[in-house]
Amino acid sequence: MHFGSDNWAGAHPAISAALANASAGFAPAYGASELDRKVADRFNEVFEREVAVFFVGTGTAANALALAAVNRPGGICFAHREAHMIEDECGAPEYFTGGGRMHGVDGPRGIMDPALLEKAIDHFPAEFVHGGQPMAVSITQATEAGTVHSLDGIAQFAAIAHHAGIPLHMDGARFANALVSLGCTPAEMTWKAGVDIVSFGGTKNGCWMAEALVFMNPDTARNAPFVRKRGAHLFSKSRFIAAQFDAYFAGDLWLTMARHANAMASRLAEILSASEGCRLAWPPQANEVFAIMKREQAARLQAAGAAFHEWHPPHPDSAALDEGEAMYRFVTSFATDPAEIERFAAITG
Amino acid sequence: MHFGSDNWAGAHPAISAALANASAGFAPAYGASELDRKVADRFNEVFEREVAVFFVGTGTAANALALAAVNRPGGICFAHREAHMIEDECGAPEYFTGGGRMHGVDGPRGIMDPALLEKAIDHFPAEFVHGGQPMAVSITQATEAGTVHSLDGIAQFAAIAHHAGIPLHMDGARFANALVSLGCTPAEMTWKAGVDIVSFGGTKNGCWMAEALVFMNPDTARNAPFVRKRGAHLFSKSRFIAAQFDAYFAGDLWLTMARHANAMASRLAEILSASEGCRLAWPPQANEVFAIMKREQAARLQAAGAAFHEWHPPHPDSAALDEGEAMYRFVTSFATDPAEIERFAAITG
Amino acid sequence: MHFGSDNWAGAHPAISAALANASAGFAPAYGASELDRKVADRFNEVFEREVAVFFVGTGTAANALALAAVNRPGGICFAHREAHMIEDECGAPEYFTGGGRMHGVDGPRGIMDPALLEKAIDHFPAEFVHGGQPMAVSITQATEAGTVHSLDGIAQFAAIAHHAGIPLHMDGARFANALVSLGCTPAEMTWKAGVDIVSFGGTKNGCWMAEALVFMNPDTARNAPFVRKRGAHLFSKSRFIAAQFDAYFAGDLWLTMARHANAMASRLAEILSASEGCRLAWPPQANEVFAIMKREQAARLQAAGAAFHEWHPPHPDSAALDEGEAMYRFVTSFATDPAEIERFAAITG
Amino acid sequence: MHFGSDNWAGAHPAISAALANASAGFAPAYGASELDRKVADRFNEVFEREVAVFFVGTGTAANALALAAVNRPGGICFAHREAHMIEDECGAPEYFTGGGRMHGVDGPRGIMDPALLEKAIDHFPAEFVHGGQPMAVSITQATEAGTVHSLDGIAQFAAIAHHAGIPLHMDGARFANALVSLGCTPAEMTWKAGVDIVSFGGTKNGCWMAEALVFMNPDTARNAPFVRKRGAHLFSKSRFIAAQFDAYFAGDLWLTMARHANAMASRLAEILSASEGCRLAWPPQANEVFAIMKREQAARLQAAGAAFHEWHPPHPDSAALDEGEAMYRFVTSFATDPAEIERFAAITG
Repeated sequence: MHFGSDNWAGAHPAISAALANASAGFAPAYGASELDRKVADRFNEVFEREVAVFFVGTGTAANALALAAVNRPGGICFAHREAHMIEDECGAPEYFTGGGRMHGVDGPRGIMDPALLEKAIDHFPAEFVHGGQPMAVSITQATEAGTVHSLDGIAQFAAIAHHAGIPLHMDGARFANALVSLGCTPAEMTWKAGVDIVSFGGTKNGCWMAEALVFMNPDTARNAPFVRKRGAHLFSKSRFIAAQFDAYFAGDLWLTMARHANAMASRLAEILSASEGCRLAWPPQANEVFAIMKREQAARLQAAGAAFHEWHPPHPDSAALDEGEAMYRFVTSFATDPAEIERFAAITG
Repeated sequence: MHFGSDNWAGAHPAISAALANASAGFAPAYGASELDRKVADRFNEVFEREVAVFFVGTGTAANALALAAVNRPGGICFAHREAHMIEDECGAPEYFTGGGRMHGVDGPRGIMDPALLEKAIDHFPAEFVHGGQPMAVSITQATEAGTVHSLDGIAQFAAIAHHAGIPLHMDGARFANALVSLGCTPAEMTWKAGVDIVSFGGTKNGCWMAEALVFMNPDTARNAPFVRKRGAHLFSKSRFIAAQFDAYFAGDLWLTMARHANAMASRLAEILSASEGCRLAWPPQANEVFAIMKREQAARLQAAGAAFHEWHPPHPDSAALDEGEAMYRFVTSFATDPAEIERFAAITG
Repeated sequence: MHFGSDNWAGAHPAISAALANASAGFAPAYGASELDRKVADRFNEVFEREVAVFFVGTGTAANALALAAVNRPGGICFAHREAHMIEDECGAPEYFTGGGRMHGVDGPRGIMDPALLEKAIDHFPAEFVHGGQPMAVSITQATEAGTVHSLDGIAQFAAIAHHAGIPLHMDGARFANALVSLGCTPAEMTWKAGVDIVSFGGTKNGCWMAEALVFMNPDTARNAPFVRKRGAHLFSKSRFIAAQFDAYFAGDLWLTMARHANAMASRLAEILSASEGCRLAWPPQANEVFAIMKREQAARLQAAGAAFHEWHPPHPDSAALDEGEAMYRFVTSFATDPAEIERFAAITG
Repeated sequence: MHFGSDNWAGAHPAISAALANASAGFAPAYGASELDRKVADRFNEVFEREVAVFFVGTGTAANALALAAVNRPGGICFAHREAHMIEDECGAPEYFTGGGRMHGVDGPRGIMDPALLEKAIDHFPAEFVHGGQPMAVSITQATEAGTVHSLDGIAQFAAIAHHAGIPLHMDGARFANALVSLGCTPAEMTWKAGVDIVSFGGTKNGCWMAEALVFMNPDTARNAPFVRKRGAHLFSKSRFIAAQFDAYFAGDLWLTMARHANAMASRLAEILSASEGCRLAWPPQANEVFAIMKREQAARLQAAGAAFHEWHPPHPDSAALDEGEAMYRFVTSFATDPAEIERFAAITG
């Protein structure tokens, strides 16, 4: 019963098969192969416009290089206080930007409060050199709390960012899970709502290692080839990422995998909320479920073979915890076996 | 007839198979899986001592992070003027070290002249703050010129580096090719000769993407986990690199592949030196052959289907060129088909 | 009536005279002059131990280079949320450390809550590579709120920092004001209480531009000459800083100036607290007074010729404000004329 | 007999007097004072156009921040191999640009060979991401060899830089000495010849510490306030730099001082070339004289009280040295006493 993280799964068999198929033969390196080009075109189709796509190796790289591409001297990127870029990337965004800063903004369930974001940006007026200058706003879709920004919500953040003269970045490590949750198109969830740059993740959703930095407007990507190469993320046998994405998009495998993961999370939420002594912290919208229960109950489930971790909730959400309780995160993926979910239902009683 | 680069090949079938096998099931992420640990142990065996090994995604990352791990304020790394770190990494070593510098040192056939190296280091005496301070010496094994440092040669560079109080780094993008060329053990080619840090490359020798930063003395690697994570090269599904290395080392596949590549280069050298109007720039020692011929002759061979590129030789070697001649690089790999070599022999006449 | 900032004053006449005296004649550059050495010795006397002192040009430089000297990969420095390094240095600490991070910690009146500091440090356990690793704790003495850390308070922060294996830095832009407020020795306020590195400021207290980065233990300053030179803060005519410090220390001018500034602040506090409709936010301990009054009242005083600025108080302190009120900062210095203070008393009525 | 360096002198009495005058009274900090504005206007007059001027503390800061303002990912700045930025700034340009690179170009007497510069730039074609991309060309005026670029020469470098789409930077640590040597206007020596950014030095020519980063086109300086502040070179009591420049320009003091220094160098050159066993390496054009003599002869002069240093000539110039000879540098300044020069004439015999 593996609900620890979506990166504990391996690769989908179709992804592995694609790699095996691509193994034979020779092809130009560093992204110049036919397969690389084919997949780049596929991204244009997926986003219904010409985009500039750059494969990279990790989500952290996509995020950090996105900021490196748009940073300004004294630059500040605004993101939710619990964002992966702030909490889980060991300072990579600051490192790759040569000292840019992440400014955490509060808000419930992984989504910044728009008013607080505006206030945070206003803290750095253009004429006050001592503070620095805004350089980007970043949102995570789906969020670290397993919730999903609505299209209107994204558009609101885009409006705030653009009003401040800075781009809106989307950390899409769980892009597909959010997409099928909203039931919209990639175009609608990104540039049609005002998103400028996307960290497009495939790894958590069935690839071995396939991430892409996608600029919605290719004109803004002039320096990106150098940003990526200097950042040590231009792969010589780049087609091995292309092959993964090729299979990922083929027959909408990516959407199928994300729907499965989300469905598994919904079922898990049902089970958890029906379980005595356990309640949901909030309703899941993608492939992560946050539940509150007594520590003893959690320990019992873990002893019975269920893998999941305690989650340290941000301050306001902590208020929901009673004595002896803790918050726990359950993550599903393309590889989650429905039988395991039912096994879990059995042990929760 | 693909002699363009060893990174135009895909992955060895055994590597692909290993990936397919590893695809199923769940395993801890970020390098904590059993397979990751098994492969880390395998590195200890390969090097006949406990080493600290960190998987990364590109050779450029291994090199740049190696320097980031040992840099000092105002730090300077000394390497051959034609080194990959100087010529082909878009400034990644300088970027990852936050402004460290690469200092090019001349020498024939990709190997620094030891006297010039000593002179270059002496240019930065400890008490002269204006120049900066030495931080590392780096050698490439096999070199960018397809030659190989002898064990005595490596020991000499180690002595110079250690005398200056700085470590010796080895860029081993073609580690295996050099190793089988020398017919020695990995231990002999590294720490027994005084090497402190190795960029251990698997990608050019049959993997999809498998590189490792290896500290010969684990005590010096205390900060390396942070260096790698902050550098965006800690992979969540790390076992997909481990699986490649697992197959790479199994049954000495890596040595078999390197021997094949080197043998193909030797045969190619025979053919080229026997071809009228063509001569070797110098004898090949690994899997790269450098030949001099008239541009027309090269164009004819390329038109007949042979893929190889012009190489811009460093100054002293340029002297060997006559009017109308150019230098060309031919690279072989695990995937080079002997039949293609013989086809090439046929068209060179 | 200049209460806008202590850096609106020029230099004390004795400082100017010292510069004029030093103008004539030739002397070795880059800190090697006799005067430079004499002043370095003077620092040893002031601190009652051998220290390593490095003149720099700005307080921001002293702070940023202090962190650059002690940073680690993924490094995090903990400081009060309102610290100058966080709020007023345009990201210089992050820039000079190549992406180190400042982590703001809350606490009343410019002083971190020790329990919150411990909790913040615990957020980055050594084995969790995703978060990064602590690299320093920094306190400001006197604080941005015009308060002063007690000797016991400093020792407590030192204990917390050292327990975490990291140094304690003191931003001493107003070192002298705090010192005379406590009535202790420089040694007691620094290394005897556990401080490791001091940004020693002279500029706000009567110099034109005289700041020093002081390492309490010279053994830890091995790289500092390179840190400063690479950071573009090694001055060729370094003796012009030495001359300022020479006059600064002579006859305890620095303490006299600080005592005057603090006394002027005390008198200002009396006046403000006695003024109808006005109250102190908290009692001043150095040369800054924070007062709360209606905006109209402040505007009236400003119109009458008093220069002072609104201060945006941190969240908890904001609670003290009623409708229509704001917090204002008044700063005194060596140059504050007692007659101006009494003029101000007159207009406050 | 002080010919060691122009930074061994103190400040001109008029500069010191200006500082004393400015000491009294209060003025807005951080460059907002009337005096700061007046001097900024004075720069406009000096350059006969509206420029954007930013005071900084060291020549190294001016150079490094100039590059930080124009850097691009993977950026490379081309300068003479002996340039101060390459040889004497401890890697500050690389540090402040977050890993930009300096590419040394050869040429006689401190001036790049234009053909070699073009070839160096061509080494980094736009489509070859592995090498990086050009970001600036920098020339030093006067050069490190005490020579001066002609106006045509500057225009030629500007044409090469602009053809490559990059700006031309001038390191003007000895701007005034070059200016009076050419007998042209500041406008002619800079923007009229195509220079885009100037590091304008006052320190070596009679100031204590007065340097300025000057953008010929203010539109290109949008980010410069943040570049400087983040770089820790925005001075709170900025008017103390303004006061120095105010006196520097008043009555053309700067030109008078530079003419004196150059005249002293000419006289020194006469003396040296007339001295038996001694010859000039090349004719001086500003305030530095390079002479070749036997080491014993130099030692004799030094023992007799003449301060000057050996200079390590670049390779081609080394060829001019016979056995036992060395090259020596003599530097004059505003403060050089003609009587000392004649004393030197006496001891050279």
